[in-house]
Amino acid sequence: MLNNDSIVALATPSGAGAIAIIRLSGEEAIAIGNSVFKSIKNKELTKQKTHTLHLGHIVDEQKVLDEVLVSIFKGPNSYTGENTIEISCHGSTYIQQQIIQLLLRKGCRMANAGEFTLRAFLNGKLDLSQAEAVADLISSDNEASHQIAMQQMRGGFSNEIAKLREELLNFASLIELELDFAEEDVEFADRSQFHELLNRIEFVLKRLIDSFAVGNVIKNGIPVAIVGEPNVGKSTLLNALLNEERAIVSHIAGTTRDTIEDELVIGGIGFRFIDTAGIRETEDHVESIGIRKTFEKIEQAQVVLYIVDSIQFSVSSFENIKIEIQKIRNQFPLKPLIVIGNKKDLLAADSIENIEKEIPNILLISAKNKEGVDELKNQLLSFVNTGSLRNNETIVTNTRHYDSLLKALDEIQKVKFGLETNLSSDLMALDIREALYHFGMITGQVTNDELLGNIFANFCIGK
Amino acid sequence: MLNNDSIVALATPSGAGAIAIIRLSGEEAIAIGNSVFKSIKNKELTKQKTHTLHLGHIVDEQKVLDEVLVSIFKGPNSYTGENTIEISCHGSTYIQQQIIQLLLRKGCRMANAGEFTLRAFLNGKLDLSQAEAVADLISSDNEASHQIAMQQMRGGFSNEIAKLREELLNFASLIELELDFAEEDVEFADRSQFHELLNRIEFVLKRLIDSFAVGNVIKNGIPVAIVGEPNVGKSTLLNALLNEERAIVSHIAGTTRDTIEDELVIGGIGFRFIDTAGIRETEDHVESIGIRKTFEKIEQAQVVLYIVDSIQFSVSSFENIKIEIQKIRNQFPLKPLIVIGNKKDLLAADSIENIEKEIPNILLISAKNKEGVDELKNQLLSFVNTGSLRNNETIVTNTRHYDSLLKALDEIQKVKFGLETNLSSDLMALDIREALYHFGMITGQVTNDELLGNIFANFCIGK
Repeated sequence: MLNNDSIVALATPSGAGAIAIIRLSGEEAIAIGNSVFKSIKNKELTKQKTHTLHLGHIVDEQKVLDEVLVSIFKGPNSYTGENTIEISCHGSTYIQQQIIQLLLRKGCRMANAGEFTLRAFLNGKLDLSQAEAVADLISSDNEASHQIAMQQMRGGFSNEIAKLREELLNFASLIELELDFAEEDVEFADRSQFHELLNRIEFVLKRLIDSFAVGNVIKNGIPVAIVGEPNVGKSTLLNALLNEERAIVSHIAGTTRDTIEDELVIGGIGFRFIDTAGIRETEDHVESIGIRKTFEKIEQAQVVLYIVDSIQFSVSSFENIKIEIQKIRNQFPLKPLIVIGNKKDLLAADSIENIEKEIPNILLISAKNKEGVDELKNQLLSFVNTGSLRNNETIVTNTRHYDSLLKALDEIQKVKFGLETNLSSDLMALDIREALYHFGMITGQVTNDELLGNIFANFCIGK
Repeated sequence: MLNNDSIVALATPSGAGAIAIIRLSGEEAIAIGNSVFKSIKNKELTKQKTHTLHLGHIVDEQKVLDEVLVSIFKGPNSYTGENTIEISCHGSTYIQQQIIQLLLRKGCRMANAGEFTLRAFLNGKLDLSQAEAVADLISSDNEASHQIAMQQMRGGFSNEIAKLREELLNFASLIELELDFAEEDVEFADRSQFHELLNRIEFVLKRLIDSFAVGNVIKNGIPVAIVGEPNVGKSTLLNALLNEERAIVSHIAGTTRDTIEDELVIGGIGFRFIDTAGIRETEDHVESIGIRKTFEKIEQAQVVLYIVDSIQFSVSSFENIKIEIQKIRNQFPLKPLIVIGNKKDLLAADSIENIEKEIPNILLISAKNKEGVDELKNQLLSFVNTGSLRNNETIVTNTRHYDSLLKALDEIQKVKFGLETNLSSDLMALDIREALYHFGMITGQVTNDELLGNIFANFCIGK
């Protein structure tokens, strides 16, 4: 799989901008760059130091294509570990195409998706989980997902796995050594130390596996279903949250007109608010496809917000409201539910007291005056276990890692059971090898072309 | 207008990509960059050489925002002429925003549109017409417009203007010197040499002014109206042209559904094909707004293609076709008209002979078999005076330059008339000053804040 032919791709987003970067990597990258570059100071790129910048023109025979700046990185001191140049040209799509086409004629080929990072991995510049973090980093759109990707890219996750793997490997060697002396019935591996190690590994694996639930929602945003009649102040509430946080908002039309998603970032965590307006009035048409889709959306939610207009409360209506709340709770028995009474600003003091007495856990707010909005934010954030985020603990966000961790845990528990039941060393050695295999799959010490193909196919071209 | 406070902007297209470039320029740019940068090798950016690259992290207090590469350019050896750094970061929009916000907190301000290039102009790195060419270069989408912008950016146009201006300035000085010796009635400026210079300037100005017609269509694409019934093979023809040239195609919905524009590049020149399907059948509703808009579109066209299905010809129909052609000629009396008979492949040899005899200038083609497509391309290109393009002659594409050239020509002709009619030196000196003023407006030797504001407002931010 390791090639060192020269690959080329646009590394900046496509479209016109002030400047664009065209990246070349490979044994001959600098020489190929030099063949189309005419330096202002008549310098040969091939004779320049690494990490230097050179002004000049890209020329196709006699025709000047553009005035550019060329960066030189000599392997192994480059992203890919190979000779690399980056051509910073004017950002017209025409110029980008012309320069890339010229380089293709001069012996480069178009890079595949993620091929620069694949080469970095194959040349030992990054391990596999770090390489995967590069893609996560590029697609991160809020603080939490950015922080996790950044930590993973800097090796936090792989270091933890690699350390456990090394300790396990030591014991594996000792136990396999015992097999060579099987007839002498010696024990090189201290069984109680080994048991302690297995406990430690089991503990770490369980923690990492548990972190996936948090990691996954952080990576994709936490889905929150909003249930409530129209005009109870839902938009006002979303805007209040939004203004406070200057967050990213997008309106994604759902599968039906009934489902609209608003995405916003609260305390650095992405939340996806799924507006389910219309669900209440149509309870008797529950069989219809549209409603079923809305319910499916709500099923994906991690939290349910039930918003009511608190000025519509009256002594007589409390029982009705309680029945409604109970209905929602029955519909979503396992999901945290926040009952919000909006328009607190229009209530008299005694009404507030009365409502809070009748419906104990209600959160009375005034979306209009941004009263109670902080309290709501805190309640939403309390559903996310951000403790580990703050403690810089490793969080797993990648399904592939999660899968390997589950398999490794399974093997470790088998080894532990074997140890406790005095399983023979040769059978135990097999289970240890299996566990080591799954650890290696995470960091890329064990790998295969198909796996690499799948991973890097999700990258953008130019990375 | 000249500031040297530090400005920052994203220089690459917005959106997510493998990498993004954030550009800083100003007296303190390197120091500000250094304050948020932690080099892998513990290097201070402020102590590094110009044109070098440094790997490290952007840190906000203790928090690592990204792993980046920083390029250093020390003034005056930079694009703007000031200290400049370019931060090459991972291309997530979140990271881009975070880094820019951090730099703003550290004392930068957001750059205005075109402010980097404005500074390059104010610091004498580019003259005004070269600065304007930067924007043209970024928006160029075909060979011809790219070549013209490139030539202008490299100073071809300004050199020509500056040379004439200098010669004129010499004579102006001599003539103004005569004013000091007015009572002695001496002539320092050789009148016949001056007359020769004025003729030469007049000749160059006229050539440049004439080139604007070509330059303008090259910059914006040459509009070609296609007239013809549906199903005569228009799409097939466009595709045939397209496949041959691997050109850019876009479908721009017009003001009405009746008008669709296809843009494609033939021989490096952009053509905009305006499909006017529907115009024929509705001749009697010519008053309706939709049809009027279609006619307006055709009015803008430089060339009209009239496509007919040649297998529908019969002895009896020749007269009808001739009448139709005459109608189109009458509608667009001043525009070149190409009559195309498609589906030549379905004609017998004697039919071809007959058609060509009856309708002498018809171009018989087979769009399906790509027969006659080259001939059509040559006919289309023949309407563009590409001679000057090939000769590397200066072509004016900028309306502002065109306007200044017209005014300069007017003044030069006044001076010439003054010289021929023995106008007094003092009056002639005034006209020469006026001509010099208009020359200076082109290159920016004469300028004002409003003019600069207008020019650079059309740039993208980050350039």
